Amino acid sequence: MTPRTTFISGSTRASIEADATFLELAQRAGISLPSLCGGRGKCAKCRCHPQGPSSEPTPLERELLTDEELSRGIRLGCQARPRGDVTLEIEEEVLDKGDYVEVAVTPDPSVRKVYLTLPVPALHDDLADIERIRNALGRPVAVSLEVLRRLPGLLREGEFRITATLLDHAGSEELLAVEPGDQRDGAYGLAFDIGTTTVAGYLVDLQTGKEIARSARLNGQQPWGADVISRASHAMEQRDGLQALQAAVAGTLNQIIEDCCGGVDRGQIYAATVVGNAVMHHLALGISPASIAVSPYVAAIRDGLSLRAAEIGLCLPNARVDFLPLIGAYVGSDTLGVILATGLDESPEIQLAVDIGTNGEMALGSRERLLACSAPAGPAFEGGEIRYGMRATTGAIDRVRIGDDVDIWTIGEAAPRGICGSGLIDALAQMVQRGIVDPRGRLLPRPQLEGRLPAKVLDRITDRDRSWEFVLSWEPYVAVSQQDVRQLQLAKGTILCGIRVLMDELGIQADQIRRVLLAGAFGNFIDKRSALGIALLPSEIPAERIQGVGNAAGQGSRMSLLSGKIRARAEAVARRVEYFELSKHPRFEEIFVESLQLTD
Amino acid sequence: MTPRTTFISGSTRASIEADATFLELAQRAGISLPSLCGGRGKCAKCRCHPQGPSSEPTPLERELLTDEELSRGIRLGCQARPRGDVTLEIEEEVLDKGDYVEVAVTPDPSVRKVYLTLPVPALHDDLADIERIRNALGRPVAVSLEVLRRLPGLLREGEFRITATLLDHAGSEELLAVEPGDQRDGAYGLAFDIGTTTVAGYLVDLQTGKEIARSARLNGQQPWGADVISRASHAMEQRDGLQALQAAVAGTLNQIIEDCCGGVDRGQIYAATVVGNAVMHHLALGISPASIAVSPYVAAIRDGLSLRAAEIGLCLPNARVDFLPLIGAYVGSDTLGVILATGLDESPEIQLAVDIGTNGEMALGSRERLLACSAPAGPAFEGGEIRYGMRATTGAIDRVRIGDDVDIWTIGEAAPRGICGSGLIDALAQMVQRGIVDPRGRLLPRPQLEGRLPAKVLDRITDRDRSWEFVLSWEPYVAVSQQDVRQLQLAKGTILCGIRVLMDELGIQADQIRRVLLAGAFGNFIDKRSALGIALLPSEIPAERIQGVGNAAGQGSRMSLLSGKIRARAEAVARRVEYFELSKHPRFEEIFVESLQLTD
Repeated sequence: MTPRTTFISGSTRASIEADATFLELAQRAGISLPSLCGGRGKCAKCRCHPQGPSSEPTPLERELLTDEELSRGIRLGCQARPRGDVTLEIEEEVLDKGDYVEVAVTPDPSVRKVYLTLPVPALHDDLADIERIRNALGRPVAVSLEVLRRLPGLLREGEFRITATLLDHAGSEELLAVEPGDQRDGAYGLAFDIGTTTVAGYLVDLQTGKEIARSARLNGQQPWGADVISRASHAMEQRDGLQALQAAVAGTLNQIIEDCCGGVDRGQIYAATVVGNAVMHHLALGISPASIAVSPYVAAIRDGLSLRAAEIGLCLPNARVDFLPLIGAYVGSDTLGVILATGLDESPEIQLAVDIGTNGEMALGSRERLLACSAPAGPAFEGGEIRYGMRATTGAIDRVRIGDDVDIWTIGEAAPRGICGSGLIDALAQMVQRGIVDPRGRLLPRPQLEGRLPAKVLDRITDRDRSWEFVLSWEPYVAVSQQDVRQLQLAKGTILCGIRVLMDELGIQADQIRRVLLAGAFGNFIDKRSALGIALLPSEIPAERIQGVGNAAGQGSRMSLLSGKIRARAEAVARRVEYFELSKHPRFEEIFVESLQLTD
Repeated sequence: MTPRTTFISGSTRASIEADATFLELAQRAGISLPSLCGGRGKCAKCRCHPQGPSSEPTPLERELLTDEELSRGIRLGCQARPRGDVTLEIEEEVLDKGDYVEVAVTPDPSVRKVYLTLPVPALHDDLADIERIRNALGRPVAVSLEVLRRLPGLLREGEFRITATLLDHAGSEELLAVEPGDQRDGAYGLAFDIGTTTVAGYLVDLQTGKEIARSARLNGQQPWGADVISRASHAMEQRDGLQALQAAVAGTLNQIIEDCCGGVDRGQIYAATVVGNAVMHHLALGISPASIAVSPYVAAIRDGLSLRAAEIGLCLPNARVDFLPLIGAYVGSDTLGVILATGLDESPEIQLAVDIGTNGEMALGSRERLLACSAPAGPAFEGGEIRYGMRATTGAIDRVRIGDDVDIWTIGEAAPRGICGSGLIDALAQMVQRGIVDPRGRLLPRPQLEGRLPAKVLDRITDRDRSWEFVLSWEPYVAVSQQDVRQLQLAKGTILCGIRVLMDELGIQADQIRRVLLAGAFGNFIDKRSALGIALLPSEIPAERIQGVGNAAGQGSRMSLLSGKIRARAEAVARRVEYFELSKHPRFEEIFVESLQLTD
């Protein structure tokens, strides 16, 4: 059982299921616990009071906390971790949603609640139940069989005083739900962001736009592989594989619904929005992603899709779910969400949004013209196919500085167990800066660097299996090999190639890009200067123009949930964005090879 | 296990599950085996050749059939009965669908099949699957998640040459199904008539209007009572009662689908229509009939309803089901079907259509104005609450003549076991004619009739428990009691009262009614003169104006299935028919009491 932590602050709740320190969990759940030292166990600002089974206090906590604090159960967020279900209350002023761009949205929900006093049936008034509602509204409304089935009971329970919830939907109105009595106050919605790894959900009040709760859970499709390709393969090759994957992600969405519905009647959740990459989108709908996974990469549907929650197995009896449109087979509605949240489509100046992951998705442009592409970076940035690579969890080296010797920092200040994506970028940038790796990605043999590096650094260049590698930690042993550098080079080259192809297609130079927005958790952790230092991003771009925007995809989903105008904008953007297949560019190979260079 | 008989004639199949003679089964399934003597075992015209376990030949068959015929398995339809699953082939010219009014309908289906050759995806053509179809059609089409889920596989199976089935539906088009290759030929529909006792289904070719197969089965809701009130009570009072009743009738519909789909791919059934009384309608939809069953008798919905077959559990992957509109809480879409089939709504002359059953439903009028009402006749016409009453099965007295003595006829020429509805009407008419029962329904004491009746007839008026009764058969004993006469009087009085109230409301006299159409099986069996003889119908109407029209409700369902124009007509008729609650008439009590008279 993965432990589960719920952060509570006033009326906001955020839940996450993962094994990490509370500080890290808070970050992943989109909540910042205060921290000056970045979780290195130095500032003790991340004092918190977890309720529930937690790890034993570390020596660092015994040093930084008083006996009285320890006896009261006060802990350091950067040290303590859940050992079961834990609740963590945070003072409201401390709670900070700063990890994502918060765009003020004027709620303009397509859902409307009306209180109706209907005439009570009598022998001289034999109108059918639904006709009473239509007459009271003064116009026709569509009604589903589900609502009809509940209608007679609810009308009589409310003695013909009812609250009708109406959905404006493709120009006509639908009766979404009926409640006995006056229930005009409660109208909620859920915005989902279905990531390959993590699924996030935000419960909001549709009338005020206020967030009520949030939750993040591991995507229940994990057992079928970590990346979209293995998931798609399973769906294609196994009997009932597609159904299993659909049920798994529906299960995760239902868990999130349960997490968020502490104080809210789930019958009053009337709308949901979903963003995700094309494979997640298809799998959540139960549509085979086979044609997306195989050349020529075609989706079954890209347009936005509106359906009843039950059709995809969600336990929301009265909700419609809007799947935001895909931009292309490899640029999903998550990227559309990023565009909406960052306002790329409305910007007078050119901006670049990049979501770096196994599959890098990026959009470049302004309100004039918007281009998007997908760059298959591979798993290197997540530590995959790197000898000592690992995910960004405890013991992962996440920062490297080379001076007279090598200094390393690890997540949770633990003994190094390996190196994560941001650490790899940092390490490589330092190695390039010190000339250990040349611009073409060759890890120079120690003899060649003799006299050009401090002795302790030079000693770290060692020979292994007739290839050179650079040792970050002797005990436990963690090193970056020539092969690792090649993997990183391919990954970063793919991202940069994508950016350069889009720039070329748009006919602009790097200095015309006014802002680079790094979406996703990874974007927040990357050292911007290191990213420029290995030319992951065009090095002409000043570091101050680069900004992490957190889960902008989820934010875009949330904006669409709150406003019909934004949903219409989303449809227009999806049609307007020009999806560009990288390999179609006439100079693709040339640009790709140039992009492999570690300086440009 | 109730035995099952399937009649086959050329490409037509009709199935029925019941224990009765083949002649009777054929009639109930809407097929006439030739018979001159009316099934009394006299004409031997109903010779047939059942394949499958059947009853032993009767003495009558041994008399009327040759040894050679008997050894070949030739039987008399009026004598032999199934003992298991039996198939009975009928020469095509013999097959006669004369039991229902057959109205020629020009097929005008709302379903259209189009063969499309779509562009094959390529790297430079990354349109989504559904966009390819929309582009080829040149217009937007709606698509359900179900079709989307199957779309990628089917497009590729057909190598992008496909047949799209489009449904014209509320002004917009929906993509109902996709098939690989050219499949424009196959487009079928099913018309259902859900009766409280029997459910009938007709499979027709939507393009030609030709009937492919038909089947009739007992409504699977039988275990929960014979009439609508006990079914409604079960749905209201038992936990999961509603679901059980819904599942039961869905099960029956699915059996009928299976019966009919011998040579037809059920994936090519795109449309279905349903008629039934309001309780059957609500139960089939899974809507509680509580408010229909209890005063002031209000339906949840009366308007026509279109849904996906799966929503009510039908195994028709690509079909939409149209529930025809109800006229009122006690005048269902079955009566609407009768109106459509008999053309009451288009008739320049005034006509009356009556469906006599536990609940008599009737419509009176012309193209100018149409009134309908429901008359709760009770079960007397089905033999219920009559001491020797029984359903119209073997051994039921179904014809009575009083001359010097009493002559009785029984179904299947068997020894009398009781008396059925048509027999009761016949017996009562004869008793009234001979003065045994006076116009007010009093069975006269024997002494009062002394000298006015032949001795043998007089002897049959016997005293039992201080009340007089009339003996129809001494051995076995079957009689009609004073109490039985009162039950019949109430039943027929209710029907006549309904007719008279509608006449009064319409401001017409009986002689202005140009045609009386008796719908349902019972209507075919009633002796018209006897019905007039007890004033079940206004006695001013000449017998030749009275006509049995068989399952006109099912015929109306079928007409609606074949033609969008007729479906539109059905909606218009349902809105136009004035449902009249009998008790609302200012002289209701007076008319009711007058209607109890056995002559008028």
